[in-house]
This record gives sequence, C-alpha cells and structure tokens, in this order.
Amino acid sequence: MDIARRGVMLVIASPSGAGKTSISRAVMASDPNIELSVSVTTRPKRPSEVDHVHYHFISVKQFERMRADGELLESAEVHGNLYATPRAGVEQSLSAGRDILFDIDYQGTLQLYQRCRDDMVTVFILPPSIKELRARLERRAEDGGDVIQRRLKNARLEMEHWDEYDHVIVNDDLDSSVEKVRGILIGARTTGRRLTQMSSFVKDLQNQIDSL
Amino acid sequence: MDIARRGVMLVIASPSGAGKTSISRAVMASDPNIELSVSVTTRPKRPSEVDHVHYHFISVKQFERMRADGELLESAEVHGNLYATPRAGVEQSLSAGRDILFDIDYQGTLQLYQRCRDDMVTVFILPPSIKELRARLERRAEDGGDVIQRRLKNARLEMEHWDEYDHVIVNDDLDSSVEKVRGILIGARTTGRRLTQMSSFVKDLQNQIDSL
Repeated sequence: MDIARRGVMLVIASPSGAGKTSISRAVMASDPNIELSVSVTTRPKRPSEVDHVHYHFISVKQFERMRADGELLESAEVHGNLYATPRAGVEQSLSAGRDILFDIDYQGTLQLYQRCRDDMVTVFILPPSIKELRARLERRAEDGGDVIQRRLKNARLEMEHWDEYDHVIVNDDLDSSVEKVRGILIGARTTGRRLTQMSSFVKDLQNQIDSL
Repeated sequence: MDIARRGVMLVIASPSGAGKTSISRAVMASDPNIELSVSVTTRPKRPSEVDHVHYHFISVKQFERMRADGELLESAEVHGNLYATPRAGVEQSLSAGRDILFDIDYQGTLQLYQRCRDDMVTVFILPPSIKELRARLERRAEDGGDVIQRRLKNARLEMEHWDEYDHVIVNDDLDSSVEKVRGILIGARTTGRRLTQMSSFVKDLQNQIDSL
C-alpha cells in the first residue's frame, strides 16, 4: 500500500566509463514510476534526436530569459553549448509523485543541492579499478587515445567529489549495482517527510480506534 | 564489490500487530550480515530461553552498575522488569561492519537517537487499517478481549510518533514490506559516511591514473 508522496530526484553521477548509463537504463527499465529528466539545450538537434524527448531544443535568447526568470535549477556550458534543467517540469513531476533520474556531473549536483536538497538523493558510481575503467573506455572504440587520456584525467577530478554524494557504489557487477540503486530509491520513497498524505492516514487510523 | 564500512543500526518499530515481527524475521532470514540486538534484562529466564541468545540475564545490581557506568544505550521498565541495550556489543558489531536489528518502541528509539543518531536508520510499520490490526491481534488468540483493547489504545499512542522515524511503511503485503525494508537497509549500507575505507579506495584509484 503506497501513501501519496512527493517524487524523488535521483541523481546518478560517475566518471565517464564507470557504468552510470547501463545502471540508469536498467533502473528505468525495471521501474515504471521513474523518468529521465529532460534538459533544455541550445545545441542544434541531431537527426537521431526528438525534441522534448531527448532535450528541449531552445535558442540562446530563450535560454537567457529562462535563466533570468529563475526557471533553471542548474546549468552548464559544454563545448560552447548551454544545457540546463528547467524548474517547471521537475516541480510538476515531483508534485504528482513521479521520480526523476538525473544524469549530471558534480557541478550540476552542487547547483541542485542549493535549490532542491530535500527532494534529492544522490549516488556516485566508481569503477573497481582504473584498469577496468580504461578497458571500458577502450571498448567503446568511438574515442581515440587522446580522448581516453582526457577522460581519465577528468575522472580523477570527478572522483575527488565522491564525499559530496549521499551514496557511493563501486560498480564491479552491473546486477548488484542496479539492486543497490533500486534499494536507495525505495529508501528515498519511504522517507517519512516525502509521504505527503501520511499525517492524515495516521489520523484516520486513530479515529478508527476512537470509534470502536 | 563492497568497501569496508561501519555497520548500521536498523530500528524497526510498530504498534503491536502491525507485522513487525514477521517483517524482521524475513529480513534476517534473507541477509546473513544482520543480527538481532541482544538486550540485558533483570526478568527471570523462561524455560524456552537461552542466556546470551534471547537476552543476557543479569541481576538488578548488575543492571544498576551498568547504567551508572554508561554502558546502556537505552533502557526501559516493563511490568517491573528492567530491559536495556548494552553499548559494548553494539559497538563491537558496528566496528566489524555487521548490522544490528532493533525491535524497540518509540521511547527506546528516542533514547538511541540521543546517543547513536549517525549509526541509525529507523523504520515505522503501520497497519493498513484498524480492522486489519484488530483481526491480526485476534488471530493470535493468546490475548483476551481486554488485552486487545489495551493494545489498540497503546497502538493509538505509538502511531502519534510516526514522524520521528526516518521511514514509514504501511504493511498490507508482507513481501512488499520486506522488500522495502531490504531497500532501506541497502540504502543505509551505501551511505558515503559509513564507508570507512572509501577515502583510501578513491586515493588508490587516483594514484592508478597518475601512474599511467
């Protein structure tokens, strides 16, 4: 029996290659009540992408207006393009009791902490070893040696921030890591302060006793 | 891959008849790393009980000495007998990374909060309805009508304290409730501040990158 509740913002972050995407996909596939956060971006749409599914594609002018109006929960510039999480969609989902998965780095996480700490639960994924991390980056094959070196240096920096996350998982086994993230999500969902209808549910139980 | 960590004190509390005992047993049966807290008591040992398994049976004099020496984390008097959780055994288990399940009421929980808040995660179990709660109490058959009335009145008081717990579960389905408690336990185990070896694990990963 599930009492009406506010949704959870589940942030999963990790160095590139640690397995975040596989874990996120498996969690989403196993749970109908969690959806991926859809960012706004000023980057041009790629042919394979669908507007409002992969991103909300907007102009730089629209982006600046949203930022000025406080409509962005966090934002970042990557290779000259702007990305951000719009506030309205997040609030709508949380109010309706739907959970949202965020795939952002530590800088985005720190920005979200400032605005939404109570709604968030954050997970940092680490590789079991750098040998394994490098092997995963090399298996992708899409990146050259220079890119892999850069990703490893960047991984070193990201790891520095492990203790800013609520939970930390070393991903040496996908199934086990997925089970851990699912557990973390269940824990967040049963957190008392998120159970918006619990107070009235308890009062109702007490009234049932009084009227015996 | 599990990083060495400090154990979790998992407190499960509920009004009598809400299903706490069934849930606790199922969680213990499914997980080799969690053990039941063994209390000290001044109550005489019953024939079915084993000393140091069900309780540590001690004299009133021993109890008072332990209390004076600060060796008790929480204590209670029930029907003229004294019960308490001894500090030493808890600390030993937590340091060794073993989790401990506590079956105590809200008064015991509040006492533990004062001494061990960072080690604790607490769960309150509610029945789906008072009709169902009464039916469960009646099915036990061991209690007379007067006792059931008293338990219901006591349940009313216990419920008042639902919002002092980290997590709240409405137990209308045992399997679902057990899954939720298991999730809460997993969430507590992956909490960054409990992972005593994570800092050195991350440093080691960073050294591996530096030495490439």
